[in-house]
Amino acid sequence: MRFYRTAIATLSLWTCATLADSLPKEWLDQARALGYEAASSNIAYSVVESLTTEVGPRLAGTEAEALARDWAIAELTTLGFDTVAVEPFEVPLWERHIERGRIIAPAEQPLVLVGLGGSASTGDEGVRGAILRVESPEALQALPDGSAKGKIVFVDQVMGRTQDGAGYGAAVRKRRETGEQAYRLGAVGALIRSVGTSGHRFAHTGQMRRAGTSDLPVVPTAAVSGADADQLGRLLDRYDAVEVELVLTSEYLPAAQSGNVIAEIKGRTRPDEVVIIGAHLDSWDLGTGALDDGAGVGVVVAAAKALMDAMPEGPERTLRLVLFGAEEVGLIGAKAYAEAHQAELEKIVLAFESDFGAGDIWRLDHGVADEALPLIESMTTVLAPWGVIPGKPGATGGPDISVLAQAGVPVITPLQNGWDYFDYHHTPDDTFDKLERHSLDQNVGVYAAILSIALREGVFFK
Amino acid sequence: MRFYRTAIATLSLWTCATLADSLPKEWLDQARALGYEAASSNIAYSVVESLTTEVGPRLAGTEAEALARDWAIAELTTLGFDTVAVEPFEVPLWERHIERGRIIAPAEQPLVLVGLGGSASTGDEGVRGAILRVESPEALQALPDGSAKGKIVFVDQVMGRTQDGAGYGAAVRKRRETGEQAYRLGAVGALIRSVGTSGHRFAHTGQMRRAGTSDLPVVPTAAVSGADADQLGRLLDRYDAVEVELVLTSEYLPAAQSGNVIAEIKGRTRPDEVVIIGAHLDSWDLGTGALDDGAGVGVVVAAAKALMDAMPEGPERTLRLVLFGAEEVGLIGAKAYAEAHQAELEKIVLAFESDFGAGDIWRLDHGVADEALPLIESMTTVLAPWGVIPGKPGATGGPDISVLAQAGVPVITPLQNGWDYFDYHHTPDDTFDKLERHSLDQNVGVYAAILSIALREGVFFK
Repeated sequence: MRFYRTAIATLSLWTCATLADSLPKEWLDQARALGYEAASSNIAYSVVESLTTEVGPRLAGTEAEALARDWAIAELTTLGFDTVAVEPFEVPLWERHIERGRIIAPAEQPLVLVGLGGSASTGDEGVRGAILRVESPEALQALPDGSAKGKIVFVDQVMGRTQDGAGYGAAVRKRRETGEQAYRLGAVGALIRSVGTSGHRFAHTGQMRRAGTSDLPVVPTAAVSGADADQLGRLLDRYDAVEVELVLTSEYLPAAQSGNVIAEIKGRTRPDEVVIIGAHLDSWDLGTGALDDGAGVGVVVAAAKALMDAMPEGPERTLRLVLFGAEEVGLIGAKAYAEAHQAELEKIVLAFESDFGAGDIWRLDHGVADEALPLIESMTTVLAPWGVIPGKPGATGGPDISVLAQAGVPVITPLQNGWDYFDYHHTPDDTFDKLERHSLDQNVGVYAAILSIALREGVFFK
Repeated sequence: MRFYRTAIATLSLWTCATLADSLPKEWLDQARALGYEAASSNIAYSVVESLTTEVGPRLAGTEAEALARDWAIAELTTLGFDTVAVEPFEVPLWERHIERGRIIAPAEQPLVLVGLGGSASTGDEGVRGAILRVESPEALQALPDGSAKGKIVFVDQVMGRTQDGAGYGAAVRKRRETGEQAYRLGAVGALIRSVGTSGHRFAHTGQMRRAGTSDLPVVPTAAVSGADADQLGRLLDRYDAVEVELVLTSEYLPAAQSGNVIAEIKGRTRPDEVVIIGAHLDSWDLGTGALDDGAGVGVVVAAAKALMDAMPEGPERTLRLVLFGAEEVGLIGAKAYAEAHQAELEKIVLAFESDFGAGDIWRLDHGVADEALPLIESMTTVLAPWGVIPGKPGATGGPDISVLAQAGVPVITPLQNGWDYFDYHHTPDDTFDKLERHSLDQNVGVYAAILSIALREGVFFK
């Protein structure tokens, strides 16, 4: 309904007709200046280095994730946030133990694979079966009950590479459903071609739909690397039967401790009006979660710190930084946050997050009221020097923030270039050396500039 | 002494002054034509696909290497070689079992590592110790006996990326010596930064000096990926003590079966004068040996086949294709070959091999008599359309062929672009998809053109 109700008194000369209904030029200039300042800081890079080195992998519900919360509390306190606190919740904990696979016929060859989060365990003795290959989750679903008895189902769908990550949405169904579908078919195990685009021999893990519901029946399920999927395909072209052995042992605990770490810079004039920026603290267990989502943690912390430094007296509204726990295993931290803060969701003016690696932000998508579109346009104009172009409506704000969006909170998605994000996503190769520093800095600049505007009293996105 | 003694009668117009003492233009034209024809064939690519798919990894001394010999015999027989035979020999067989490592202090993190060939076994219980980091094999050697008691030595030397592979020679000492040096120092285990240039999280295996001498005392030794070496370095910068656990179990059998596969196209007029082209059939156990050395096998087989097709009556001299066994574990096949054929080494006119991946050949290095240099110059002129430039003396012909070079056999090295070869070398990532088809074809063309000249009666390289 409202996007800009006050501060009319400060209106100065408009330089652009499309901004006629929008924000004072002085605000826009200040936003850009803050962005430039923020982008020149070393904080994001050193935050990612610290988290990925001192904590490393941090699977939700483990001691490592608890260590990450301790790390975050120490880091945010040192940086000078007004309040820093943990909001705990419980998560199911699935941990992989032994994982290995090999082709056993026609000739023995090892497979590079990784269990999917929530997979059933084969036990130490493993399972063996002939491969039944299908091209898609749809083809799998079309098979009649019991039609893969004693076999190992292999869903060999290729994920496309896209700038905006659209290929992921299309591919992820395969990861979510294959285990339960294979169970329905009577298979002894299942493989998928990894949900990812890596041209190197990495298998990509990720959560099955089973998250949090360990009573949903699934077979032991793993993802093979692209190269191994190709190899299986070539063998299936050449031989009538290709047999595989899978040893996938794991443990599923119904409840373990997780938590969101929440830090605030209190608003000076409207402390009850809140802008949320988020990232997630947990990671998969294979890499050190540098891109997913160490980079996001670095970006939001650095942007908030730049704001703090530029405004020693504090912004007008409250900035709340939420480092979510347990994102990877089913947005459990986001759901816990929304539930715990249900009463105050109305007071959230805008929410956005960084959870798509460290590629350049190139578009500003939005999920706000139509009345706020000129404000989004103003923001995009501010962001033009960073190469950001006008975006699309219908944004959900990212994985964790989408839970808030569903509850009616206005969101934006500063969309990053995800061209190579899924080369690293959920693999051992998601490590600190993959960070492109220049792009990380660009992200910090964009986030700080957006915050500068969103924290102004009287700016509304719905 | 001699490089061109006959065929003066066929001399035709010289187009280039530098060739005045060299070969008939007709020969050069024929060599180029054969090269073009060879480069347009599908054989090399399909040979590599077949070997890496149907056999896959083929560690020396294993059943998989035996399967590779069977594969080679079938393939070469089908292609129409006059004779195909195996010359067997014995090799020691070191096989890895369980390999895992993790940082245990200050915080637990997994390490991506791989045992080095010949490593001692830790036993199932593994070893634990604080990291003692040194920057080079020289620094390690300088430490006094017993000065790393109870520790895990870490040699953190970085390998440089070079076009001609020179970085490998400098780096490989680390892999060969660390295990025995760490034993001398009283360490419980050792790590090296992988001998390789991969920017992805792969550890590179390779043979320790212990090859074939399992009584040389070494500690359990593994290579970590570059990213893990960086991580250890960052942790050592931040904490006084960084502790690691290594579980590296393996088995060492003193003798297992290996062999060289040898195929010939018999010479029409001088069958006792032999040109050897080689590649190696064995591979490390992690990838499918597509670049190392499936590509080499494809190149030499395809070049020989092109020659066969162009000369149904046979070349003047004999072309002998040697697919060496047991290269990776210490050039054992090459040594067996040189020993078995000692009496006839004098009759080898020229020897060369392909064992450096599938990058474009860009230079023709040589290890021939000074008198043969104009002949090398002619060859280089022939190869100019493929982008080959004049090379350097002192070439040893490649790993296996170097054994023959030491015995006085004239050799050349058609030097490939190795810029990214050590990204894949000895890792699980050495798979079929890494082949650059256009470069593979260029290699086949160059090899065929060289053969066309070298198989001419009266052409001598010493």
